[in-house]
Amino acid sequence: MTGGAVGRVVQSRNKRYREGDFVHGVLGWQEWVVSDGRGLHKVDPKLGPISTALGVLGMPGLTAYFGLFEVGEIKAGETVFITGAAGAVGSIAGQLARIAGCRVTGSAGSAEKIRWMRGELGFDAAFDYKTTLDYRAALSEACPRGVDCFFDNTGGPQSDAAILSLAHRGRVVICGQIAHYNAEKLETGPRLLFNLIIRRARIEGFLVLDYADRFAQALARMAEWVKDGRLKYRETVVDGIENAPAAFIGMMRGENIGKQLVRIAPE
Amino acid sequence: MTGGAVGRVVQSRNKRYREGDFVHGVLGWQEWVVSDGRGLHKVDPKLGPISTALGVLGMPGLTAYFGLFEVGEIKAGETVFITGAAGAVGSIAGQLARIAGCRVTGSAGSAEKIRWMRGELGFDAAFDYKTTLDYRAALSEACPRGVDCFFDNTGGPQSDAAILSLAHRGRVVICGQIAHYNAEKLETGPRLLFNLIIRRARIEGFLVLDYADRFAQALARMAEWVKDGRLKYRETVVDGIENAPAAFIGMMRGENIGKQLVRIAPE
Repeated sequence: MTGGAVGRVVQSRNKRYREGDFVHGVLGWQEWVVSDGRGLHKVDPKLGPISTALGVLGMPGLTAYFGLFEVGEIKAGETVFITGAAGAVGSIAGQLARIAGCRVTGSAGSAEKIRWMRGELGFDAAFDYKTTLDYRAALSEACPRGVDCFFDNTGGPQSDAAILSLAHRGRVVICGQIAHYNAEKLETGPRLLFNLIIRRARIEGFLVLDYADRFAQALARMAEWVKDGRLKYRETVVDGIENAPAAFIGMMRGENIGKQLVRIAPE
Repeated sequence: MTGGAVGRVVQSRNKRYREGDFVHGVLGWQEWVVSDGRGLHKVDPKLGPISTALGVLGMPGLTAYFGLFEVGEIKAGETVFITGAAGAVGSIAGQLARIAGCRVTGSAGSAEKIRWMRGELGFDAAFDYKTTLDYRAALSEACPRGVDCFFDNTGGPQSDAAILSLAHRGRVVICGQIAHYNAEKLETGPRLLFNLIIRRARIEGFLVLDYADRFAQALARMAEWVKDGRLKYRETVVDGIENAPAAFIGMMRGENIGKQLVRIAPE
């Protein structure tokens, strides 16, 4: 199990990094690390607090950005639905869709998450998937003209409902499938795809790393939005590496809001 | 239940059609029909025998053409897999992919169909889905570098295997889902889509009518290929409208090869 981390360089014999620089990379779940510099990226502390390099101004934010704008091809006036919408990626995706002029609906798994999405994040509608009985009815009410872009972080029955709720030429962006990560055996495949014919719709998977050559441009835009208050983020922070396993399990259970972080040293 | 038909105009008070013209349209399963001309299209007998307006030079051929070239975006050197590959659409799709310089594998449901595909139609590989036990193994052998474009006419377990066999940036063209047309209740949705993330792949549905403004251009190209022998077609013809119901049921059972036709009057 690896994990992205932001760290400070305390000593360097690599010309690209100096003492005091902040770097991001898959540094491991540890307090100190020795690196030859490969796979590291400098973090610009002027863009925002360094923790944002793990969230809104890091992979989660970039995943939301390229998933919506490039894969999902969202346009102003469209309807966007997001599962896992209170998570690190989903909470940014919802706000980016709002910034782009879309109507946004999200689902998440607690009343507190729903309140945050409807309130601070500005979602137009939201439902709690743990207490909602009929996802298709919920989507039909929240998205009466159908879903133009479905940004899927979860898979499972919510996805089934969203695929059946697609508008003409709808797009499904497969970002995550957390409902299936622990599947013990290979599950059955698509059985609802006839609706893709009816709707001339598509389902597409992507990995954000494919857009690496445009990260800097995207981060500059998002940093502006964070600074002017249009793009909000939340972090769930636990202190001490000894609490990392519990935080990870909590995340898989959906206990975090926004990006789950472990602070292992003062900033 | 409607059906496309080609007929000859025996009398006309519509300026667009003269006695003796051949027309195509959803004319019903009947020997004579009165029409106000809406939804009819002239059939050019110079392009080929008039029956081809129901097959290779009609909706099935156009569906294969736009599905592969526009939705599937096939390129020379790619690997294409087609289910229902001995049917009216699939048999054309396989040959069009060959004409485009692709390596083509198809599946169908009888030894005779497989022989036709491997022989006259020039498929590089083919397997009988009724006697093949492990579709993923069959695809792995036939498409060792993965499937770049999966043209799906069937759905079902063959589709599951093909989605798991996609190459990087693979495309799934949802043309038909015959395995699911008779589903008595709403079936479960996609459960294998994590592979779309890994492969950066997409699944897209389409209806050929969306390309209507380019039909003439496509038909002209395909008519050339038919004339020069690069594009072959086969028809399964029964005589007499009284045999239409049996022919229809036979088609649903996969008994036809190529386009299933009912001849209700001499040409």
